[in-house]
Amino acid sequence: MQLLKDRILKDGRVIENRIIKVDNFLNHQLDIELFNEMGKEFKKRFVSKEITKILTVETSGIAIACITAQYFNVPVLFAKKHEAANLGTDVFESDVYSFTKDKHSKIRVDKKFLDYQDKVLIIDDFLALGNAVIGLADIVNQAGAELSGIGIVIEKGFQKGRKAILDKLDVQIESLAIIDSFEEGSIIFSE
Amino acid sequence: MQLLKDRILKDGRVIENRIIKVDNFLNHQLDIELFNEMGKEFKKRFVSKEITKILTVETSGIAIACITAQYFNVPVLFAKKHEAANLGTDVFESDVYSFTKDKHSKIRVDKKFLDYQDKVLIIDDFLALGNAVIGLADIVNQAGAELSGIGIVIEKGFQKGRKAILDKLDVQIESLAIIDSFEEGSIIFSE
Repeated sequence: MQLLKDRILKDGRVIENRIIKVDNFLNHQLDIELFNEMGKEFKKRFVSKEITKILTVETSGIAIACITAQYFNVPVLFAKKHEAANLGTDVFESDVYSFTKDKHSKIRVDKKFLDYQDKVLIIDDFLALGNAVIGLADIVNQAGAELSGIGIVIEKGFQKGRKAILDKLDVQIESLAIIDSFEEGSIIFSE
Repeated sequence: MQLLKDRILKDGRVIENRIIKVDNFLNHQLDIELFNEMGKEFKKRFVSKEITKILTVETSGIAIACITAQYFNVPVLFAKKHEAANLGTDVFESDVYSFTKDKHSKIRVDKKFLDYQDKVLIIDDFLALGNAVIGLADIVNQAGAELSGIGIVIEKGFQKGRKAILDKLDVQIESLAIIDSFEEGSIIFSE
């Protein structure tokens, strides 16, 4: 998606040839106009799929999931990662390892919001090692629901997330921008 | 806002005459169509205000802030409450005490996203004791920005949040549904 790639080139900052910081439009300050263009693009890429629910994980997936949901006319469900006073014990739960934070955490979804009739689109802001997406897909599977697709804003193509997912699941993955490499602080996208 | 009150009566669950659980449409599963109606209502109530940015706090404020932002054509900025790998040290910070979790936490906003030219609408899902909103207003104040208004989805009118805010700040507070009391498990709204 050219608009997004242009924005990453303009506003993204590469740190230590490893991390891409996009906090001025994607995960701290949020450019809702751009999010709407991304939502339209996800709809275009998954237009043939039947979707009943969008699933994401807190925190930074929520905003893009909500704006995208408007183009699918479905509710959003977000898995809780942090201590949540309002979450009961009757939950689907999966373990997710975060490489950037070097810790494991549980993600949880109340069982009453996902069942065998659901066709789920997973949305997240980043795909790197794929652990968050695999955890979400595990929850979809526990619910007996169908995984209709995975939509990612920025994929680190040089990491093994896509392969890790496709080794486990036969699913359509769409990333709006795929970074092939960082070369001396600049960003190289895959075509 | 009648549509919201009807939905709370239909789907909200009162626990221990104290907590209202609205996880099926407001803070776990999210009814984006309803959020759009809430966003329009916030726009109507703050139509005379100049707004340059919507400020909220993770997690559950983000979704409603993003949908609402579409009616103001402004970006969203969310204060980070949890450990965040992508947040630097040059931040505005405020201390927020959560009564439901009985703990203090820091909320933080990167200084580069808020300055004296901003006119800020604070959006959050709940107003109870007002601590989160007061923390956000403190950050607006630290930035030298102007606080243009406070928009809340559900206010617990029987708690002291509104008074606590108005004791400190001269600001327009708009809550889409104000709960006066819980009476034997049912919800009484203020007119």
